[in-house]
Amino acid sequence: MMRAAIILAAGLGTRMVSRQPKALHAIAGRPMLGHLIDACAGLFDRIIVVVGPGMESLSAIAAPHAVVVQQDRLGTGHAAAQAAPLLEDFSGDAAVLYADNPLITRATIERLLAARTDADLALLAMRPADPGRYGRVIADAAGRVQRIVEYADASPAERDEALCNAGVICAAAPDLLRWLGAVRNDNAKGEYYLTDVVGLAVAEGRSAVAVEAPEAELRGINTRAELAEAEAAMQARLRAAAMAAGATLQAPETVFFASDTRLAADVTVGPHVVFGPGVSVGEGSEIRAFSHLEGARIGRDCIIGPYARLRPGTVIEARAHVGNFVELKATTLGEGAKANHLSYLGDASIGAGANIGAGTITCNYDGVAKHRTDIGEGAFIGSNSALVAPVVVGAQALVAAGSTITDDVPANSLAIARSRQSVKPGRGTKSQK
Amino acid sequence: MMRAAIILAAGLGTRMVSRQPKALHAIAGRPMLGHLIDACAGLFDRIIVVVGPGMESLSAIAAPHAVVVQQDRLGTGHAAAQAAPLLEDFSGDAAVLYADNPLITRATIERLLAARTDADLALLAMRPADPGRYGRVIADAAGRVQRIVEYADASPAERDEALCNAGVICAAAPDLLRWLGAVRNDNAKGEYYLTDVVGLAVAEGRSAVAVEAPEAELRGINTRAELAEAEAAMQARLRAAAMAAGATLQAPETVFFASDTRLAADVTVGPHVVFGPGVSVGEGSEIRAFSHLEGARIGRDCIIGPYARLRPGTVIEARAHVGNFVELKATTLGEGAKANHLSYLGDASIGAGANIGAGTITCNYDGVAKHRTDIGEGAFIGSNSALVAPVVVGAQALVAAGSTITDDVPANSLAIARSRQSVKPGRGTKSQK
Amino acid sequence: MMRAAIILAAGLGTRMVSRQPKALHAIAGRPMLGHLIDACAGLFDRIIVVVGPGMESLSAIAAPHAVVVQQDRLGTGHAAAQAAPLLEDFSGDAAVLYADNPLITRATIERLLAARTDADLALLAMRPADPGRYGRVIADAAGRVQRIVEYADASPAERDEALCNAGVICAAAPDLLRWLGAVRNDNAKGEYYLTDVVGLAVAEGRSAVAVEAPEAELRGINTRAELAEAEAAMQARLRAAAMAAGATLQAPETVFFASDTRLAADVTVGPHVVFGPGVSVGEGSEIRAFSHLEGARIGRDCIIGPYARLRPGTVIEARAHVGNFVELKATTLGEGAKANHLSYLGDASIGAGANIGAGTITCNYDGVAKHRTDIGEGAFIGSNSALVAPVVVGAQALVAAGSTITDDVPANSLAIARSRQSVKPGRGTKSQK
Repeated sequence: MMRAAIILAAGLGTRMVSRQPKALHAIAGRPMLGHLIDACAGLFDRIIVVVGPGMESLSAIAAPHAVVVQQDRLGTGHAAAQAAPLLEDFSGDAAVLYADNPLITRATIERLLAARTDADLALLAMRPADPGRYGRVIADAAGRVQRIVEYADASPAERDEALCNAGVICAAAPDLLRWLGAVRNDNAKGEYYLTDVVGLAVAEGRSAVAVEAPEAELRGINTRAELAEAEAAMQARLRAAAMAAGATLQAPETVFFASDTRLAADVTVGPHVVFGPGVSVGEGSEIRAFSHLEGARIGRDCIIGPYARLRPGTVIEARAHVGNFVELKATTLGEGAKANHLSYLGDASIGAGANIGAGTITCNYDGVAKHRTDIGEGAFIGSNSALVAPVVVGAQALVAAGSTITDDVPANSLAIARSRQSVKPGRGTKSQK
Repeated sequence: MMRAAIILAAGLGTRMVSRQPKALHAIAGRPMLGHLIDACAGLFDRIIVVVGPGMESLSAIAAPHAVVVQQDRLGTGHAAAQAAPLLEDFSGDAAVLYADNPLITRATIERLLAARTDADLALLAMRPADPGRYGRVIADAAGRVQRIVEYADASPAERDEALCNAGVICAAAPDLLRWLGAVRNDNAKGEYYLTDVVGLAVAEGRSAVAVEAPEAELRGINTRAELAEAEAAMQARLRAAAMAAGATLQAPETVFFASDTRLAADVTVGPHVVFGPGVSVGEGSEIRAFSHLEGARIGRDCIIGPYARLRPGTVIEARAHVGNFVELKATTLGEGAKANHLSYLGDASIGAGANIGAGTITCNYDGVAKHRTDIGEGAFIGSNSALVAPVVVGAQALVAAGSTITDDVPANSLAIARSRQSVKPGRGTKSQK
Repeated sequence: MMRAAIILAAGLGTRMVSRQPKALHAIAGRPMLGHLIDACAGLFDRIIVVVGPGMESLSAIAAPHAVVVQQDRLGTGHAAAQAAPLLEDFSGDAAVLYADNPLITRATIERLLAARTDADLALLAMRPADPGRYGRVIADAAGRVQRIVEYADASPAERDEALCNAGVICAAAPDLLRWLGAVRNDNAKGEYYLTDVVGLAVAEGRSAVAVEAPEAELRGINTRAELAEAEAAMQARLRAAAMAAGATLQAPETVFFASDTRLAADVTVGPHVVFGPGVSVGEGSEIRAFSHLEGARIGRDCIIGPYARLRPGTVIEARAHVGNFVELKATTLGEGAKANHLSYLGDASIGAGANIGAGTITCNYDGVAKHRTDIGEGAFIGSNSALVAPVVVGAQALVAAGSTITDDVPANSLAIARSRQSVKPGRGTKSQK
């Protein structure tokens, strides 16, 4: 069975008070749309993303999937219908999903798709804590849907129904397109509602089935407060998964993950740690408090932090240490090497066992271009040194504290670049008063 | 109608285990008393703060409002009566409020004042989750109060009453003063209770009305744990307001605001950020994790942090970047300028487009006085440089890495102040072993 | 009455997905086993810890108490029986406790011991929110236990019983050893269960009594998620105790304590602060946001942070300041001294009133050994200076900014070790383009 997903991502998000399209707002470091595409990956043969005019920023996230633009905002039914030209030849199933449901799980989508094999139309439903103004799903005990009643049209008895329509549906594409074509806009807002498809299907005598899923997956995100709640739900998932896989999070509620963070067993994470995208941490390593890691690959039995700042392109090899107020960018720190205090290491390669003294700075940028610093195995960089790139410090070389190194240092040599000390008696602080 | 507020702030806060008066303890970075005065601002023509002896520290917060000292601790009625000499000529309404109710909102006070126009006395009441030993308000369905029953005197049926007295009252000042004069101290503690005013009013056949407000606003703060709960409630309010105004807080529960923090739309705040007093952030700017900002004005589309430390007097102009482990104090960073790593910039003015290298330090203090550093537009300060103030670095000037700059640098000049490098072969780390 | 505790600590913690023994996992910075030993301290004359093979790491924590190794994993009854050889001569009471109950309080253990004086056997029981598959305690209203029914063997009525067996027991040692010897392993898992001791006691016509304690103290820790929950419970206790003793925690939920942290009255702790083991803070001191303290003794009226990193061996004397991005290790900062910006101070002694400029670094390690830096009273260390240890800077001495100090500086002298500045006109950033 071929399958297509139509993802509605044209929402402006007026209640977000934002210049950005709603689907671009991020959860766990990636746009909502990206989460939904991830959940769909592998389940659908085609993915079509419907965006609004001027939402080029979403196309980059949708790529390589197809993008169609809904020029006029005439409702969800109209939005879904924009995908029709791309599905004319398509005889498989088509599902309609929403970019502002970024927490929907692959498992829930699979259940929707499976239910579709038993009925002409499958839809997702939920039992919200506060059903409020959601449309109610009138179904029998087996989940066979009689109809959807909009809240405004519902009788008091119907309003007591706890099962609510989440708006996500799946049907054979030809059916879906035909029903979408028949949806009318003779309602208060003058919009075409996707929901009406269910009524059209039932009116044709076709079978419809409701698949229940947790409200947390299906609740739409319309405000920044709801965005924050979704972020919290996503983080709770990521933290639970990390702990189940054998990481200790001393204070999980203070640790923030990207959706692709990978922690091996016996990794320990202290309080107040932030993982950006692209981080993996090897077995037995410790990430201490107040560390902020992005795009970093960390080997086993390393000690990172507190206050370690790892930026993209960082590779920390086994048993290395990165300590307090140290920033690395596009830098490899070799096995067992140490950079423990107040250093900036950018565009550098640091050999195994090297010791980077406190206050070391690689001067990788000259105002025009970036250059590399290469430090050999077992080298010792004295404190408060500046290494002006491009520069090579050989293996077992020693740089004297306080030096500004502008020329290469041969292996096992001492390089020194500082002034002699002079003393002027009687000119201390007593003389200032 | 003229109005006066009498704020009772004489509490010692014994259960806080503190040398400070209770009303000086802070929420969202300002003393409790300051919050209450803010809530009253504009609603009252006079504000009179009643403090205890030796609480001079509160007078500074109360200023420019009147302060009277309650020399003897004889109860809340006695405390309120200390304001009498300042209200002898006053025919308007007078309300009595408590400095340890810092969460009371302006809207609640307005409702109290409005209710007073319908009755001789208005009081605030609440329905606490645990009514405990609060006095109960016996009122009819319209809120007309028959009496207040102290818990100790209440019958079992009266104790079942959920409506509790919050102690805040409003009446015509002459009435209030007369009733206060009639309050007696023939009770177990030998104190004069403000609450007794209600009974005196009713005994005179005057009308009294209860205005309900949320417990969260009216619960008194007597311990550090209750102070922390009030802080949490205040932070929840501030976070919700920031999100409603269009800021994204990735993890609102880890962001702490001052009550005057202003974030424009599309500001993004990462996890673990602390705002002290006096911060505004322009549209589209990003405040990254682990940043701590006080007294800083930030323009639009800036990137601040992670680990940015902005202290009072900082001005960040549009599109500027402040990065990892960088501290600014009394410094302006010009449009598009960058200071991204391990720098201290104090008492400085930095021109548009300037680039401040890693480890740059303005030496603004010579042990006696502070001096200024002036860096021109498009200047480039090489890494690990020290700029000894007072000093001017001209526009487009270039300071070589590792330099200590003690003299002015003309525009478009290169300044260098470092030693030549020498190398001693065979004296590397291999030789140390 | 002599008393012995048998602590079962042989658990592998398979569900922790860890190479470490379960009892080695830490809460509030110390291993679970350490917490339990602490709770037992002073209540027992002997403590015997039963560990599994290859768990040498636990012996160090158990010391100086006796450790016995359970070579085969044959159940809790078998584990407890390993202590028998050390109790052959012991006529007092013996209690069996579990290392994965680190939240059990001394008060609860005292109640258990007291209850034993009224019955031949005392056991701890709880009423969990979800009784699940715990064994049920069938007792009369006075707590006299008839029997323990394992969940698998319980009737529906018995399963409705809310009182569950926590597994902790106390009896006269000769009784306990005899019953342990009689426990059989003819059950599904082929294990010897400690719980069976209760049945054996009752079968002998001996009296048994159940002592109720909160589930939070008695729930075992089997997963990293449960470990995190226990950590949270422990932190809640520590925070409440700190506030009750007069410390202000602006955001208690973001402050993490070690179990031995000591804060005096009127200490203020900002959001996002981490205390490791061995920290004490004097009256009136302020610990600002993002600080991380371990093994540090802080005097009164100090200001620490934000972003202060204090490592073991730090002593901060009264009224001293440690500020942004400053790390101290094995260093004493004298009364009123200041180190406010971007500094690393290790193995140093800093006199009263000294001022340590931004970017100061003590070069305490030469690649082979650590050396000391001694800075006298009232000295002023200019910014971006490196002090190459061993070195002594005298009282009231002044070090010029940007100096690398290699030789001792006499008192009240000016030391300078930097190059003269030269300027090359026309070679600024304009020339780079």
